[in-house]
Amino acid sequence: MKKEDKIIIVGAGLCGTLLAVRLAQRGFKVALYEKRWDMRKKQIDAGRSINLALSDRGLMALESAGLKEKVMDNCIPMRGRMIHPLGSTPFLSPYSGRAEDYINSVSRPGLNMTLLDAAEGYENIEMNFDADVVDVDLKTASIQYRDAQGSVLSDEGQLLIGTDGAGSVVRRSLMKHTSELLFNYSQDFLRHGYKELSILPAPEGDWQLEKEVLHIWPRGDFMVIALPNLDGSFTLTMFHPYGTEIGFDKLDTKEKIADLFETYYPTLLPFIPHLQEEYAENPVGNLGTIKCYPWQAFGKGLLMGDAAHAIVPFYGQGMNSSLEDVRVFDEILETGGPNWEKVFTLFQDARKKNTDAIADLAIDNFYEMRDYVDDMAFIRKRKIEMQLEQEFPEYYSKYSLVTFRPELSYDQAMRRGRLQDKLLLSLCKDENCEKMPLKDIYNQLRSIEVK
Amino acid sequence: MKKEDKIIIVGAGLCGTLLAVRLAQRGFKVALYEKRWDMRKKQIDAGRSINLALSDRGLMALESAGLKEKVMDNCIPMRGRMIHPLGSTPFLSPYSGRAEDYINSVSRPGLNMTLLDAAEGYENIEMNFDADVVDVDLKTASIQYRDAQGSVLSDEGQLLIGTDGAGSVVRRSLMKHTSELLFNYSQDFLRHGYKELSILPAPEGDWQLEKEVLHIWPRGDFMVIALPNLDGSFTLTMFHPYGTEIGFDKLDTKEKIADLFETYYPTLLPFIPHLQEEYAENPVGNLGTIKCYPWQAFGKGLLMGDAAHAIVPFYGQGMNSSLEDVRVFDEILETGGPNWEKVFTLFQDARKKNTDAIADLAIDNFYEMRDYVDDMAFIRKRKIEMQLEQEFPEYYSKYSLVTFRPELSYDQAMRRGRLQDKLLLSLCKDENCEKMPLKDIYNQLRSIEVK
Repeated sequence: MKKEDKIIIVGAGLCGTLLAVRLAQRGFKVALYEKRWDMRKKQIDAGRSINLALSDRGLMALESAGLKEKVMDNCIPMRGRMIHPLGSTPFLSPYSGRAEDYINSVSRPGLNMTLLDAAEGYENIEMNFDADVVDVDLKTASIQYRDAQGSVLSDEGQLLIGTDGAGSVVRRSLMKHTSELLFNYSQDFLRHGYKELSILPAPEGDWQLEKEVLHIWPRGDFMVIALPNLDGSFTLTMFHPYGTEIGFDKLDTKEKIADLFETYYPTLLPFIPHLQEEYAENPVGNLGTIKCYPWQAFGKGLLMGDAAHAIVPFYGQGMNSSLEDVRVFDEILETGGPNWEKVFTLFQDARKKNTDAIADLAIDNFYEMRDYVDDMAFIRKRKIEMQLEQEFPEYYSKYSLVTFRPELSYDQAMRRGRLQDKLLLSLCKDENCEKMPLKDIYNQLRSIEVK
Repeated sequence: MKKEDKIIIVGAGLCGTLLAVRLAQRGFKVALYEKRWDMRKKQIDAGRSINLALSDRGLMALESAGLKEKVMDNCIPMRGRMIHPLGSTPFLSPYSGRAEDYINSVSRPGLNMTLLDAAEGYENIEMNFDADVVDVDLKTASIQYRDAQGSVLSDEGQLLIGTDGAGSVVRRSLMKHTSELLFNYSQDFLRHGYKELSILPAPEGDWQLEKEVLHIWPRGDFMVIALPNLDGSFTLTMFHPYGTEIGFDKLDTKEKIADLFETYYPTLLPFIPHLQEEYAENPVGNLGTIKCYPWQAFGKGLLMGDAAHAIVPFYGQGMNSSLEDVRVFDEILETGGPNWEKVFTLFQDARKKNTDAIADLAIDNFYEMRDYVDDMAFIRKRKIEMQLEQEFPEYYSKYSLVTFRPELSYDQAMRRGRLQDKLLLSLCKDENCEKMPLKDIYNQLRSIEVK
């Protein structure tokens, strides 16, 4: 491991760019390759602002590169879920009983541009946009890529790290070495698609719904959510199952679309007069979980971020776990070992069970958001959890362990959180559970042993 | 669904050829494509006879095509596992307490040739060997293939069925339609490789070990097994973990190989004087489980056999489950429905949970064979199970449910079998369990309810 080692990073998204910055800060030479154009020079989808939930794990990773403050300046805090049941008044379900624990709505392209600007500041980072990597040789850490003119060029480093997302080209090249690597791989799709819509700002520029929350319209097997943007708009996302009357494959006329919103989302309708246009224009996306192992090949190549572990968005942890990859990798670099193969192996073995854990938690949360957020036992449980968090500084709900305790691994958070949930849900089946002394519940929770 | 419908089958292995025969018997036109040469005309590996365990599910499928008797003529019954512990006397662990329940060692190429001969007899089967399918269009049920001269030709049917094994080209083409199909896929490898060796017949042509059993030399994390061949030989298979001293990647000198056998398999050594030659010549294989869903695409294409569900060999059910696919498909054809899309969908939905079940059972059995066959509680359990099967005609152990009850699905067999095992293993931890009245144990087992 020498400072002169040149590290090729494929993919200048959130994970790849933060990684480039951290490696540059440590003095390594980095060549960053991005298939798309430089988004700082030419923005598309200017009208559509995709946003994500940034929370403590992502922030901790950004802090390690000195970028936390800058990013926080462009965030909107979200303090809980605003539940909009069909036919009754919306109510707030806070994320935590502690005022300092909240998540943040952040613009994905905005955050990416902040990271690219930071990377720009390092002489030892070479940035290549419009560079579509078409072939990877893992054994020599070299790539072939097509530039904007269509010419095929090549580059070679000491190492190659793939941060090129769920459809990773680098991962495909590990797949080609299946026998040699005993490469395990799975892709697993929900039978739901998603489509984004938006609520525009009010004429005076204000937010038309409560601003500092994540809105949910849960409808059993389907739902809509909304996150606030800095410009006063909200990004809405519909999650609907294929093959049913309310699936995107069946909603093929304006009448059916209007009907759907009148029937299931009537309170949303006044805010989306442009529904039909957006519905027709915006694509339908799928929701998949990708797991694989190993992440490293031949001590030369490594997968990170979504390329290694894409998850569904229902815990708001996809971006956070990818940024956390960078922090963990960086810590292993600091203390890890004298050679890259050892660093890669330590990294994948430290990280794999944690990214598996958040993948499974995200699937669980999909069912929770759809099915339980307006269920009475669940609502009682959330109330008690809030009271517990207010009264007992040491208590963290499962959600809080995962979201607000970045010093705990996802696996630890999951195992403790699930046991807590099991206990609380069994107590909360009883309508009178709120009359139980809080201290007793806390003591029961405290006595849980996590194996 | 018309008799004139032409069905393209890719892969003339055991599953594809049996399927061709059954479809031809029903009057459909079949075009069968096989990458390799016609094995009846040019056998390679003549000295090496690969054998498999054929049991009741496979036999039931063969019977539906009228081929059971012919196949049985070339089988050797195996009535149990002959366990060869290190440093003590071998002992027999029968597969069942019923004399009529046994499995069969059969030559894989022999069985395949029997099926090809049968297919030859149908005018409505067109057989194409040396036809390497290089491209599949699922939406038009058409293929492109390279013939022996290297020319690329094409064919189109009403339907296309991929029975082209674990490395299926047809499955790869479903994978290319991932978004459209929401195609779930997983490949999962054991950290063990395998290598085949052989025990030659004695000079007078006799078997050098007990003939009618499956031999196992269990050694904890690794083992050797042996199945008898008709010619007096045995095929041995070593299963050893990579990355350890006894892994194939580390056994790189004649001394290490000799050492290994002297240390762990001393009683085998006299039977394999040709060890070093065979060890050097024979390749190392990997052991993977492949699962996917859906198996059908656009009502035009379908996966069957290993292409849809490759499993590890430790339950002796890989071939049996692939042949059973044909029987189940045939039954659905009989009663199923007026159109192919419906038949395909009924088939995959009937079959998927059963092939998942046998995949998981096969992994379980890997650990059982390696770790438990010479464990005392396990041995006591097997003894009690044999007595139960002798005394109570209605009782079937998990192994017997899976192996000897083809009218039960794998999923049903697994669920009942696992509950029985759990109960029996807890009883057999007690050294004196054999003194318990058998009737009491039977009654406890009978009262198990499978949800």
